[in-house]
Order: sequence, then structure tokens, then C-alpha cells
Amino acid sequence: MRTWESEALMEQLEGLMEKRQWASLRDLLVPMEPADIAEILDELPEDRLPLLYRLLPKELAAEVFVEMEPDQQELLIKTFSDTELKEVLDELYVDDTVDLVEEMPASVVKRILQHADPETRKSINEILKYPEDSAGSIMTTEFVDLKKGMTVEDAIKRIRRTGTDTETINYCYVTDPSRHLLGTVSIRTLLLAEEDDVIGDIMDPNVVFARTMDDREDVAQSLSKYGFLALPVVDTEDRLVGIVTVDDAMDVMEEEATEDIEKMAAITPSDRPYLRTDVLSLFKSRIPWLLLLMISATFTGIIITSFEDALSAYVVLTGFIPMLMDTGGNAGSQASVTVIRGLSLHELEFSDLLLVIWKEIRVAVLCGITLAVANFAKMMLIDRLLLGNVSLTPSVAMVVCLTLVLTVFCAKVVGCILPMLAKKVGFDPAVMASPFITTIVDAISLFIYFSFATLLLGI
Amino acid sequence: MRTWESEALMEQLEGLMEKRQWASLRDLLVPMEPADIAEILDELPEDRLPLLYRLLPKELAAEVFVEMEPDQQELLIKTFSDTELKEVLDELYVDDTVDLVEEMPASVVKRILQHADPETRKSINEILKYPEDSAGSIMTTEFVDLKKGMTVEDAIKRIRRTGTDTETINYCYVTDPSRHLLGTVSIRTLLLAEEDDVIGDIMDPNVVFARTMDDREDVAQSLSKYGFLALPVVDTEDRLVGIVTVDDAMDVMEEEATEDIEKMAAITPSDRPYLRTDVLSLFKSRIPWLLLLMISATFTGIIITSFEDALSAYVVLTGFIPMLMDTGGNAGSQASVTVIRGLSLHELEFSDLLLVIWKEIRVAVLCGITLAVANFAKMMLIDRLLLGNVSLTPSVAMVVCLTLVLTVFCAKVVGCILPMLAKKVGFDPAVMASPFITTIVDAISLFIYFSFATLLLGI
Repeated sequence: MRTWESEALMEQLEGLMEKRQWASLRDLLVPMEPADIAEILDELPEDRLPLLYRLLPKELAAEVFVEMEPDQQELLIKTFSDTELKEVLDELYVDDTVDLVEEMPASVVKRILQHADPETRKSINEILKYPEDSAGSIMTTEFVDLKKGMTVEDAIKRIRRTGTDTETINYCYVTDPSRHLLGTVSIRTLLLAEEDDVIGDIMDPNVVFARTMDDREDVAQSLSKYGFLALPVVDTEDRLVGIVTVDDAMDVMEEEATEDIEKMAAITPSDRPYLRTDVLSLFKSRIPWLLLLMISATFTGIIITSFEDALSAYVVLTGFIPMLMDTGGNAGSQASVTVIRGLSLHELEFSDLLLVIWKEIRVAVLCGITLAVANFAKMMLIDRLLLGNVSLTPSVAMVVCLTLVLTVFCAKVVGCILPMLAKKVGFDPAVMASPFITTIVDAISLFIYFSFATLLLGI
Repeated sequence: MRTWESEALMEQLEGLMEKRQWASLRDLLVPMEPADIAEILDELPEDRLPLLYRLLPKELAAEVFVEMEPDQQELLIKTFSDTELKEVLDELYVDDTVDLVEEMPASVVKRILQHADPETRKSINEILKYPEDSAGSIMTTEFVDLKKGMTVEDAIKRIRRTGTDTETINYCYVTDPSRHLLGTVSIRTLLLAEEDDVIGDIMDPNVVFARTMDDREDVAQSLSKYGFLALPVVDTEDRLVGIVTVDDAMDVMEEEATEDIEKMAAITPSDRPYLRTDVLSLFKSRIPWLLLLMISATFTGIIITSFEDALSAYVVLTGFIPMLMDTGGNAGSQASVTVIRGLSLHELEFSDLLLVIWKEIRVAVLCGITLAVANFAKMMLIDRLLLGNVSLTPSVAMVVCLTLVLTVFCAKVVGCILPMLAKKVGFDPAVMASPFITTIVDAISLFIYFSFATLLLGI
């Protein structure tokens, strides 16, 4: 993708640092993208970081700062003089400052708030009030607002005047004197209009907007669905208070997908990258689920214990327990994961429950029968004939295969129902994924297995 | 989010259709977002669809058309006269036309290509040549290109002239006479510059770009990383051939996350929403993995069979097989899923392998010991004392708990190594998730279990 090779570049940088060739270092860094410079700075040893950071021109420095990891940001702030801190804060957009405030320890936050200008401080406190997953928490308060009566010429003048302080100029928002949102004008519309056109005439009065308390995931999906670059956010009194921009929406989508994936694998989500998460935090995010699921497996133990007689009579039955459990678990998690993703993407609603069950039942019957036939053939040809397992009689094989059909059936049905029920009662469907379904399906499959065995083998 | 309630709206629409109040219908639809109108049209019965679609003004109709499901698009195209088809095609952006061509059956494609204007047809054929997951396949060829010598005034004139035909005007691309990319100018820079500034002076010459053959997922992640609204795409001779816009990048990110999740759950990914996928396709995407994993479970069966004597002597051991298998599987999938997601987000590289293993080993030891202690206490207090399972001696409990520690250890190590190896040799790491890891860890855990049993119980 990039024209430079990152390892070669790091070596070159280190060489220049050794030789203290600061001017060349600066010339090397300045043309790069802020996100790339941040990646380089994040890799530097602690004592070199402030040195290299101070080489950057003021505006670029602030852009780089935003992209850095919290640990490095904290380190830098601690080396900043009050003036330097103020310079960086002045360049940041409000939503970036809020992100920073959320990540830093209390002492650093205090310093940040002291040095932010009063208006920014007010905005920060405003945004911090919104719950973590709300639209309000990810919005920025810097946008271009226009009035209905302005001409296109006035509007463009206003953009030119305020443009450097607003996060996006792609959309301008038209408000009335009490800040109610009346419409939007895209920069494209402005450029294609005549200079004396009036904003009220060319604005689009049908605005899709979010409310401060909307779920940030829904907001991100609206941006994606409508192909917008920003979405206005209004408060409970319908006053425009901020906008959510598409870059933040992309981050939200990525974070939410990661969270879903983690929950599906029985991990409590964390928002730190893996390599920057310490061992104890990883342990804490994993052990509750492992313990819970381990204890839940007591039920499968009890089922097996209560069929001990059947197992002593037909020891051959034990050998198929793992296969039956795994197949049930896999069949169930296929259904549950498909449904969970559908729910996340709003492709599925609770009202589709019967449709989903009916679809899964048909898929289950097809899968179950295919697996049973394949398994019967395999048991008779490979296990019995080839490997000479004579205790594997056709009746035993029949018990295994019938169990397979019924287990896959139950697994798919349970797998699709549980996430939808979870959603309905307000739980997170993602928790109802593989590990959870597996534990339930294990118990079901063992019960079916021993019931068929008792019935067909006359134990 | 939206101000209207979708069910109430559908009823209102149906009422108006019954009463054939076309003007009111049109007034109701026109202010809505194209994506929302498309959702409504997708729900309509086949005979009503063309009727309602024809109510829409030409430009809006094309925007709605793009957002519709392929089945409904096909249906509409079949009812279109040649003139209507041409009208819709003229309004579409090239990348949308390409999407359409990719989804439609051959006969419809032929008609589309016949009615596209020659230049568009050329672009379509160009884009269709790129592999499905490449940057080339998702780019659009409609962008604003400027020359170095132009003034800001010239540039704005050019944007006003070509603006309606380009997908974005947020960035303009500066090229030399042989179409090599020299730099970019954002619309913001243009608006904030003086009218007589020269493009060559105000452009940013350090352009992040993609190549036509780059992976579309990498391109989407670059857009997200750098916070860009579009990324230029150059061909093998460094000539600018198209741009990828952020809305397409968001779709790619969502699709790729879904694909990863599906693969992790042992499903062959499909790009159709669940409710629109027929039972046979669902069956086909699920059965290969179920069969493969079922057959793999033969190994666990063989291990159990070869320890049948141990099991007959200590039937109590059988009861803990499900718990050990599940815990191993869960521990392994926690590690593998974390690593897979890290790889997808480029937070992890193969060179981090040793770091990752060392981290997982420490997490594994903590998890293993915690689980073992908890389980020992549970077995002694609940199973033996409370439930009176006297055959569960402290030595048996010791075998189970030691197995637990070692299984969790192996599961975490295997779980983190396999996806990274897969990535290294060019396989998709996502396939190395829960079901695959579970099958391997099952065999390992049973082997450890019976080895400890033979050793400690003197079987």
C-alpha cells in the first residue's frame, strides 16, 4: 500500500537519531500521514519520544497526537509545558479531546481541563455527560451552521471564515434562532448553486438525524446505510447539538464487530489492542466465562453418571460422545452466529422468529440426514470393517446416527431461538453464541443419545 | 432514529395504493431517503413494485434503484422499456453499474451493456477485469481531476462543470498529462485558498494511494486509519484510474467482518442476507464443515476406544469428558478468536508470534490453575459430599484437575499459534477458529486425561 517499507524506515530514523540529524529527521517525517507518524512514535523508547515529537510543526504535532496510543499520549502530556499542552489542545477537535479525557488518569484530566479554553471545556463536560455507547458521546460540537436567509455567497464566506475550526465542511446545517434543525446543504450543492441563491431554497429540509441518547452503533449503521459523511445529532428538545462524522462511525463499526466477535468467543470485550493488554486484564476478561461454562458442564456430567449402567454394558458408546457433542455444538453455533450477525446488522428482527425457525428446521433436517448417512457408512466401512471394531453393531450405529439427526435438529433450533429471545428481553445476543449454545446442546445431545441407547439396545 | 414508524408507514402506503391515490403516494415517498424508499419497495408484492417505482422522479428513481435488492432490481429491469433502462443507467455511478452487472443474470447484463453509453461500457469492462476482492473492483472512475497549472478559480469552475457526474468532490486529484498522480487538493483547501492561488502550490504532494490489485480490505482499513473520505487508485504504471470512496469502504468492512464471523463459526461465507438466502444455499454453506469436523472427531473416538480398559475400571472418569472437552475448546477459541481479530485489524503480524505465545502461556497458567482449584473444590464439596458420588476419590479429582491445567495450556498455545501460521502460509486465519481448534483440543485433552489416569490411578 504505502511506498515506503516500515522496517527500513525505522532503521533510517534510528540512524538519524543516533547521528542527531534533526533537520533530516524532520524532513523525513513531515510529508507522512499523521497516523503513520503516530505509529512510529508509538514504537519509540520513552526517552526518545518527546524529542522526536517536538520536531513536528505545531499543527501536524496535534494531528499526530490524536492518533497515538493512550500510554504514549500520557507520557507526552507529562513532558509538556503548560504552553505546549495548550497549543496541542487548541488544535484538537472537541471529540478528540473527549476521547483523550476518557483515557487519561484523573491527574492528567485535571491538567487538560485547566488548559482547555472555556468554551471547549463546556463542550467536553457536555459530551462527557452522555452514556458511553450513545451518539452524544461520539459527536463533535464543531460544525458549520447556516441561517435560512443567507445567500450562497454569504454561506461560502462563513465557511471560509470558520472552516479551519470545524471537523467537516461537507455538510452545513441550517438552524433557526433557537437552534432547531431546519435542513442541510451539502458543499456540493453550495458549489453548484448560483451565488445569489438563498439557503432556505436550496437546502434539503428532509434531514435524517440522530438523538443524543441513540445507540452509537445505530448511528454508525445509519451513516453506512444512507452513505452520509456526517449525521446531525439533536437533543431532547430537538436542538442541534453536534454531528457524528463518518470516520468516527467507521471506528464504532470496527469496535462493535470486535466486541461481538469477542463475546461470541466467551470473552468480556476490552477496547485495547491485544499486544497492549496486560496478562492480568486478559485473564480477567476470559476467566469468568471459562468458570461459568465449566460449572455448567456439571449437568452433562450428571447425565453421563446417571446412564453409567448403559455405558458399562456398551463401552463402545463412549467413543462417540465427543463426535456427537462437537457436531451438535458446531451445528448450533452455525445457526446462532448467523442469527446474531443478522440481528447486529438489523437484517433480522424478533418478528422474523417463526420465519427463522422454519428455515433452520429445514436446514437442520438436510444437514442431519446427510451427516447421519455419511456417518453410518463411515462406521460400517471404516470403523467396523477396516479397523475391526466388532462391538460396533448396526444397532449401535443406528443409535449414533439417530442421535445425530435429532441433535442437529435441536442444536439448530436452540441456536436460532436463544439469540433472538436474548435480543427480545434486552440481553446482548452475541453472548448466546458458540460456547453457551455448545454447553446446552451437549446436555441435549447426551440425553438423546442415552435415551435412544436405552430404547434400541434394550439396556 | 427515524421520525416515522415503519409499520404504520407501510399501512398508510398500502391504503393509498388501494385507493390509487398516486399523487399522495408520490408526495409521501419523495422526501424520504433513497435507502428507505428501497426498503419499502423491496417489501412490495411483485406486481405493485414497477407501479410505485414509476412514481419517483428520474434522479431519485436511480438513487433508489441502486439501494434495492438484486431480485427486485432484476424484476424492475425486466419491466423497463429501453428508454427507461437508459435513463436509469445514465444516472448511476460506474461502480454501482458494475455492482449491478455482477449480480444480474447474463441476459440482463447483455441488455445493460447495450444501453450504457460507450465510455461507461469501457469503464465497466475495465473494472470487471479486476479480481473480486481487489481495490480495482470497488473503485469508481468518476472523480475530479485537476492540472498543476490551474488557479483555484479554474479548479472551482471545473468542479462546478463536472461536479454532478463525479461521485465525490471532497478531494480533487492533480495529474500530469500522462495521468500520473501528482497530488491531491481537498475541497476545504480550495475554499480556504485565494482565487488566484495555483493548484500546484496548494496541493498536497504526499498522496496515500492504493494499487488496483491491492486487497479491498486493506484499502478499507487505510481509509479508516487515515480518516480519508476517498483514496486514489493507480494502475501498474502509476496512472490514476479511479478512487475508492468511504461509503464503499464501510460496506467492505461490514462484509469482511461478517465473512470472518461466518468462517469462525464453520460456515462458508455468502454475501446474501440471511432471510434472502434459500435453504439449499444455507445447507451448502454449512454441511462441508460439519462433515469435515465430524470425520475429524474419529480421532477422539479412537483415543477413547484405546483407553476402554481404563474407562471400564473407572466409569466415573467418563462423566468429566464433556467438561474437559468444552473447557479446552472454550479456552482455545478465546485465544484463537483474539488472535484472528488482531490479524484482521493488522494489530498483529507474524513477527509477533513469540510475544503472543509468551502472553498466552501466562494467561493459560493463570486460567488453568484458577479453573483447577475451583473444580477441585466443586468436585469434593458438591459432587462427593453433597451429591454423594463416592467413586469420585481425591485421586480421580486430581487427575481431572491436572488434565484441566494442561489442557487449558495446550488449548491456548495451539489456539494462538494456528491462526498465525495459517496467515503466514497464506491461508485464511479465520478458518482456524473455534470449531477447528475444538476438534484438535478435544483429541489433546482426552489424550492428556487418559495418560494422567493411567499414571496416577495405576490402571
